[in-house]
Amino acid sequence: MTITTDNPATAHRNGVDTAALFATLDAVKQMPPAAKFQFRAHNQWVQGTHSRSSIHDFFGVGEERCHEREFVFDADHPAVLVGKDNGPTPVEFVLHALAACLTAGMANIAAARKVTLTEVRSTVSGDIDLNGILGLQPVRNGYEQVTVSFVVKGDAPEEVLREIVEQSRQRSAVYDVITNGVPVDIDVEVA
Amino acid sequence: MTITTDNPATAHRNGVDTAALFATLDAVKQMPPAAKFQFRAHNQWVQGTHSRSSIHDFFGVGEERCHEREFVFDADHPAVLVGKDNGPTPVEFVLHALAACLTAGMANIAAARKVTLTEVRSTVSGDIDLNGILGLQPVRNGYEQVTVSFVVKGDAPEEVLREIVEQSRQRSAVYDVITNGVPVDIDVEVA
Repeated sequence: MTITTDNPATAHRNGVDTAALFATLDAVKQMPPAAKFQFRAHNQWVQGTHSRSSIHDFFGVGEERCHEREFVFDADHPAVLVGKDNGPTPVEFVLHALAACLTAGMANIAAARKVTLTEVRSTVSGDIDLNGILGLQPVRNGYEQVTVSFVVKGDAPEEVLREIVEQSRQRSAVYDVITNGVPVDIDVEVA
Repeated sequence: MTITTDNPATAHRNGVDTAALFATLDAVKQMPPAAKFQFRAHNQWVQGTHSRSSIHDFFGVGEERCHEREFVFDADHPAVLVGKDNGPTPVEFVLHALAACLTAGMANIAAARKVTLTEVRSTVSGDIDLNGILGLQPVRNGYEQVTVSFVVKGDAPEEVLREIVEQSRQRSAVYDVITNGVPVDIDVEVA
């Protein structure tokens, strides 16, 4: 009998390179400032409610970096909100961000716990009363409530799969931003 | 001399159909529940930190509706964060959402005030210490600070252009979500 380390299949359980994940954790433990990141989006107004953002450069692990390619996204309002529907509304991108953040965390956490996930699906919905942004009623401008409904399948007992969701919630950057809020400064240069 | 209403060019100042905008405001004034919307994103895990959202259906003005087409977005982590860079990180989508929301509001508000904008650009940056999501230090998981830097040009005095930015901030759904937070419920079905 021999004791083996993870075979190649389980070393990339859930598509997660767990060796790299643990090596990254160890590296940051040795050098905490490496974990200071700055992310950015560069937006250009097109017309009406239509604008376009480029996401490419960021700072992390002590230096300026770039994604492998530039990502470009349009946002707009649908016709019922006096736009031309060239993209989702800004508030819909927030829901995508939340789903993606929780789901990425679940894959990492499951891999670290040697749980193989076979499916993760979610619908994120946000209820909003547009009387706020229209200035017609004294209600808030943003979502009143956001609800995430997950369907999760994997080779672990239900209790463990639920723990994985819960641990991801506790470690989610977007969940923290949305539930706890973040200070936002706005600078304006009139050119 | 005749008194004329707006000519076709100014009626669509900034690409905003101001007649439709004011008609929408009047219609919602008459029937406030029309402004109750629910937006949604449907997300499917791909592998590792990579997931994909579909944004298509929403509820508003009393009925189920759809965008003119389905919008699909990938999210992932870059290699430095143990992903495959198939899309921006979830937290970057939040920055895009903020830029797009403030910018859409500026175009509408400027049109309503008969100000023609000729350029609106912004960079939104978010500072985050990933020691939080890595569970290595007692810092928050999300952004510590978000900064929006606008460049605005238009046919109005600097003071008026600054007021337009400020009014947009006061009426922005995403700004409200990010600065004030929203309750998030998470339901899990283990299939």
